[in-house]
Amino acid sequence: MTTFAPLYVPAPLAEAVSDRAWLAAMLEAERALARATGASVDDEVFRPDAYDIEALCGQGRADASPVVPLARALRDRAPEAHGPATSQDVLDTAAMLVARAARALVAAELDGAAAACAALATAHRSTPMTGRTLLQRAAPTTFGARAAGWLVALVDARRRLAGARLPAQLGGPAGTLDPALAARFAAELGLDEPVVPWHTDRAPVAELAGALGAVAAACAKVGLDVVLLAQNELGEVSEAGGGGSSSMPHKRNPAAAVLARACARLAHANATLLTGGDHELDRAAGAWQAEWPALSAALAYAGGAAAAARRSLEGLEVHADRMAANLGDLGTDVGAAMAIVDRALAHYRGQA
Amino acid sequence: MTTFAPLYVPAPLAEAVSDRAWLAAMLEAERALARATGASVDDEVFRPDAYDIEALCGQGRADASPVVPLARALRDRAPEAHGPATSQDVLDTAAMLVARAARALVAAELDGAAAACAALATAHRSTPMTGRTLLQRAAPTTFGARAAGWLVALVDARRRLAGARLPAQLGGPAGTLDPALAARFAAELGLDEPVVPWHTDRAPVAELAGALGAVAAACAKVGLDVVLLAQNELGEVSEAGGGGSSSMPHKRNPAAAVLARACARLAHANATLLTGGDHELDRAAGAWQAEWPALSAALAYAGGAAAAARRSLEGLEVHADRMAANLGDLGTDVGAAMAIVDRALAHYRGQA
Amino acid sequence: MTTFAPLYVPAPLAEAVSDRAWLAAMLEAERALARATGASVDDEVFRPDAYDIEALCGQGRADASPVVPLARALRDRAPEAHGPATSQDVLDTAAMLVARAARALVAAELDGAAAACAALATAHRSTPMTGRTLLQRAAPTTFGARAAGWLVALVDARRRLAGARLPAQLGGPAGTLDPALAARFAAELGLDEPVVPWHTDRAPVAELAGALGAVAAACAKVGLDVVLLAQNELGEVSEAGGGGSSSMPHKRNPAAAVLARACARLAHANATLLTGGDHELDRAAGAWQAEWPALSAALAYAGGAAAAARRSLEGLEVHADRMAANLGDLGTDVGAAMAIVDRALAHYRGQA
Amino acid sequence: MTTFAPLYVPAPLAEAVSDRAWLAAMLEAERALARATGASVDDEVFRPDAYDIEALCGQGRADASPVVPLARALRDRAPEAHGPATSQDVLDTAAMLVARAARALVAAELDGAAAACAALATAHRSTPMTGRTLLQRAAPTTFGARAAGWLVALVDARRRLAGARLPAQLGGPAGTLDPALAARFAAELGLDEPVVPWHTDRAPVAELAGALGAVAAACAKVGLDVVLLAQNELGEVSEAGGGGSSSMPHKRNPAAAVLARACARLAHANATLLTGGDHELDRAAGAWQAEWPALSAALAYAGGAAAAARRSLEGLEVHADRMAANLGDLGTDVGAAMAIVDRALAHYRGQA
Repeated sequence: MTTFAPLYVPAPLAEAVSDRAWLAAMLEAERALARATGASVDDEVFRPDAYDIEALCGQGRADASPVVPLARALRDRAPEAHGPATSQDVLDTAAMLVARAARALVAAELDGAAAACAALATAHRSTPMTGRTLLQRAAPTTFGARAAGWLVALVDARRRLAGARLPAQLGGPAGTLDPALAARFAAELGLDEPVVPWHTDRAPVAELAGALGAVAAACAKVGLDVVLLAQNELGEVSEAGGGGSSSMPHKRNPAAAVLARACARLAHANATLLTGGDHELDRAAGAWQAEWPALSAALAYAGGAAAAARRSLEGLEVHADRMAANLGDLGTDVGAAMAIVDRALAHYRGQA
Repeated sequence: MTTFAPLYVPAPLAEAVSDRAWLAAMLEAERALARATGASVDDEVFRPDAYDIEALCGQGRADASPVVPLARALRDRAPEAHGPATSQDVLDTAAMLVARAARALVAAELDGAAAACAALATAHRSTPMTGRTLLQRAAPTTFGARAAGWLVALVDARRRLAGARLPAQLGGPAGTLDPALAARFAAELGLDEPVVPWHTDRAPVAELAGALGAVAAACAKVGLDVVLLAQNELGEVSEAGGGGSSSMPHKRNPAAAVLARACARLAHANATLLTGGDHELDRAAGAWQAEWPALSAALAYAGGAAAAARRSLEGLEVHADRMAANLGDLGTDVGAAMAIVDRALAHYRGQA
Repeated sequence: MTTFAPLYVPAPLAEAVSDRAWLAAMLEAERALARATGASVDDEVFRPDAYDIEALCGQGRADASPVVPLARALRDRAPEAHGPATSQDVLDTAAMLVARAARALVAAELDGAAAACAALATAHRSTPMTGRTLLQRAAPTTFGARAAGWLVALVDARRRLAGARLPAQLGGPAGTLDPALAARFAAELGLDEPVVPWHTDRAPVAELAGALGAVAAACAKVGLDVVLLAQNELGEVSEAGGGGSSSMPHKRNPAAAVLARACARLAHANATLLTGGDHELDRAAGAWQAEWPALSAALAYAGGAAAAARRSLEGLEVHADRMAANLGDLGTDVGAAMAIVDRALAHYRGQA
Repeated sequence: MTTFAPLYVPAPLAEAVSDRAWLAAMLEAERALARATGASVDDEVFRPDAYDIEALCGQGRADASPVVPLARALRDRAPEAHGPATSQDVLDTAAMLVARAARALVAAELDGAAAACAALATAHRSTPMTGRTLLQRAAPTTFGARAAGWLVALVDARRRLAGARLPAQLGGPAGTLDPALAARFAAELGLDEPVVPWHTDRAPVAELAGALGAVAAACAKVGLDVVLLAQNELGEVSEAGGGGSSSMPHKRNPAAAVLARACARLAHANATLLTGGDHELDRAAGAWQAEWPALSAALAYAGGAAAAARRSLEGLEVHADRMAANLGDLGTDVGAAMAIVDRALAHYRGQA
């Protein structure tokens, strides 16, 4: 149902947040639970191929959850297969597994973007250009210093994303299952062990959403500046292979920068949904069920923003001559711009 | 990529906002343009089967638009096929066509929900129950009056949705194409004729988004009240066929009400994105490209909310005995509750 | 508490949404109710000077409403003074009264902005300039056509704002008061008569919020385009008396355009809050109490955006020579730009 | 202009984000800069009493910033007073100073709320009650376990708030001032030293906003559960001194819980604005100027939510008899509820 997904989202990331991936994650959670409880259930039972997620979702409508029919299907095949978990345990844990896989892909795009940024900052450490405030000429800086600003934001967003905890969930319907069992379950999956069940404390989801928002913002900033600097009248950068236009084939558009901004808006909207819900007592009656599509979308579009920012940066052509010409009477005293580049690069290397 | 779509969105509506539907709408726009310009292009050229939207989106990444490769493909088949339109003309017009088709499906769900609501209001016009403010017992009302409140909101949301203008877009890259041509183009498609091109005046999109938000809010209100009244300790309503639970098979959950609330949250988040973008000069560099998935999602989830509210209402079991018992010492002076029901029903019939 | 209000909001508008104004509106509602019920209460009782809104708010904390202590104070002075209304009746009606007064001020700013826009469109009907898509040179248009686009958006937003219904609220705690009384009450105040009490159907608030969002968006668009066209490298417009800078006194900033954009963001955020709350049963336990500051802010900042857009437009200097120079090899075939200007002006006059 | 502020926000916190406080913070930044640059300026020059912030804001409208007229006023009194800083340096640094002072007040309210929560968790470690999913009876838990869940969320939100970095800003118009000077400036103020100027990398603001959102969410959760458990038909908790009603003086409303939810909604809306702006090149033309009121509001309402949650918790009356009665046939096997309480308390103590 997502419109024009391949325009925005790299295929592996789209796959990582697909229904197939969620199904596999739910089954992985169920399998880990069987192991943690010592139930002897054949691994075959947990193979995704045996289940039809679309049908489960259709059936799940009567239960507001795809896990109820999935649990039935599991029990049909092996009575011990579903264990003491409740729907929310399975889905929250699956969400964290999906997030872990998708996060790695997002981080890889960020790494690429940061590397490209670092290369630009290095190459143009002392290339003078106009600093602009309120889009008006203000004072000289260097293109390296501008790239350094992008770089620090990308590095910090990546660190924040990497730092978001991904806890397993295992509490049963009222959050009262044995924490020792939850600990074994988390260990089976390599997820964080929560202090207590977080079934209606959505801080982990909100933290992840906040980190994805930070990723989106860092990429949107690159996109915005590229779009502005690529204006014909400025002409200070252009995207290699910048896109054309259906009615103006000669045009060279900063298409990747534009898509970075578009993806960032979509990521932000979905991340916002994930930070403000009302989660009633021991399971929310609406806010929780809205999280799954929003989480997938936030992951996918944050990654799309990173991938687009990376494409924009990797192919960015810097026109030092135009930068010099645009400086006009501002002079070329770039102050401590080079020192700022060096600090940003050291920050980048320290994190890498 | 949309997670668990069949859980939330009726299949015909999901289809109406699918990539296939957007492709068909883009081709319908192109065909109408050919006709409006008097180009003689074989209708065959505009058949969706001949194009692969997924591939076009992949190619479109270089242009931040699927229309650029689509226009190339059209011209390959018939040089006159793409006409003077620019990407935005095709996509904005396609968006309105998609919206028109999806809106009809959303409205049909709303009609069903309103009819169920009207039946409840009629049947329980004088069934006394507790009015609750801040979730505390306040004063008697009737269940009919409560349903009347839902009904008026549903009716007004439907009217607002039906009233949202759906203008064609035809301005060329700078919005300077002949308005007479745009008028013919709009007439070909049965869309509204805009005063001037609205390529960066997104009021039509925002109005539609606002209306979808109103639909979502009206449905969420039904869902919220049903969830609250269905609490065991109140027991005043229950959903027929209310869903079970993976760990508590005896439970009867107000699953449709829960999904109405979940869908409403998703619709609201996407509608919000559609009301606040920065659209630069003659085509936005990011905010526009973020609209397509958000518009599809807003339509789909608003319709999902309506369908879920309808299911909840159509099967709602009203427990007048529990309502009577919960009144306790509040008495049964329901004031003008019945007159209020009558006003709501007249309003409903006046709109129907 | 609002930071730097005089920077953003015209003083009369700030006053119109102040606590003083809300107090006066609550008392006006109380007085109208006394009249509608035929209670003979001295008008003196309803004079705002006799009450301290700050103290009432402090006392109201225990009740989550300033009306409870206000009603106590009223009854102390005249036992019949508070009538059968509940807190929500008083506050919702007061909100509509505040909105009515503030809306008139917002509309006046919009009128000024539209008039300035119309003058620009007329004066520059055929002044050629570059149309820019994705901020890249695309095709010629005229500055008049650009102003025409702004104008239509301003006119439509004003119409939407004027069209938002402002219903009185009178239902008592459970929404069961006599509709005939509510009708008299509404007539006393010159507010719309609601079909049924809307205490938890917040569509009127959401419609108003949507209209304020439309105002903000139309003004933000002016601001954005002015900011972009005022870039030194384009130099196509500048703001008369454009602001300076603390460190660069020679600079000329498009300050009004910047403030229009800032205000629009603040208006949008507050309007969004007003469209998505959960309103439980007969009075919301949180979402309602969040509306008052958000409504004031949405009104104030929408008006601030309109006032800033007006200032920007009224003093806008159009540099036709720079526009001509920037066209370069695009030529000056502006297509139907002039016809578009004429359509916009006719639309404006038809609405005025 | 903020409507009914004393209803929501503790007076010291309202003062901490007032215009007076911002003025003092701007002057503190200016003074620190004078010291860091070795300018010998009389401390008297930086005394807030000498300036009228309201007038500065009015004058600042022409510059879209109150700092331009403030800098003029400073220079009038002492030519060296304003130093090499630009408006943004002064305002961003002032924002961090305001945030530091307000954060301490928010944290104190959170501490109070957490302490009350810990006391409840301890006292009701083994008080059995119904766990409810989708607001339906699910399985037994204890009230202590519920309070433990609230506690962990409050503790984690407080930690996140305390961890938000508050960097000084000193870059000059193009972000090229000497980092060594910025370091001295930060040290003067006791603020964090930034890696590079963050004038258009708004990650620090977004992180703070995210933390305030987390505070709001944790408090809203308390409010929501209290409101639900305080329903008459459940009667499991009540607020001491719970508020009355203007039309129903006998009622006892969970007023503090309601206000916690209202404040949380307002905090969330303002926090969201702070995470998604477009900040162009070296100073945003709109998104930055929208931050100041939103930051103040996010701080104030997050603190209001914490204060309200604290009031609700500190006076919470727990009705163990009603809890026992409502359990019905669910039994009293509360699983590992007590162990969960112990884990939460240890987590709390570890953080305290």
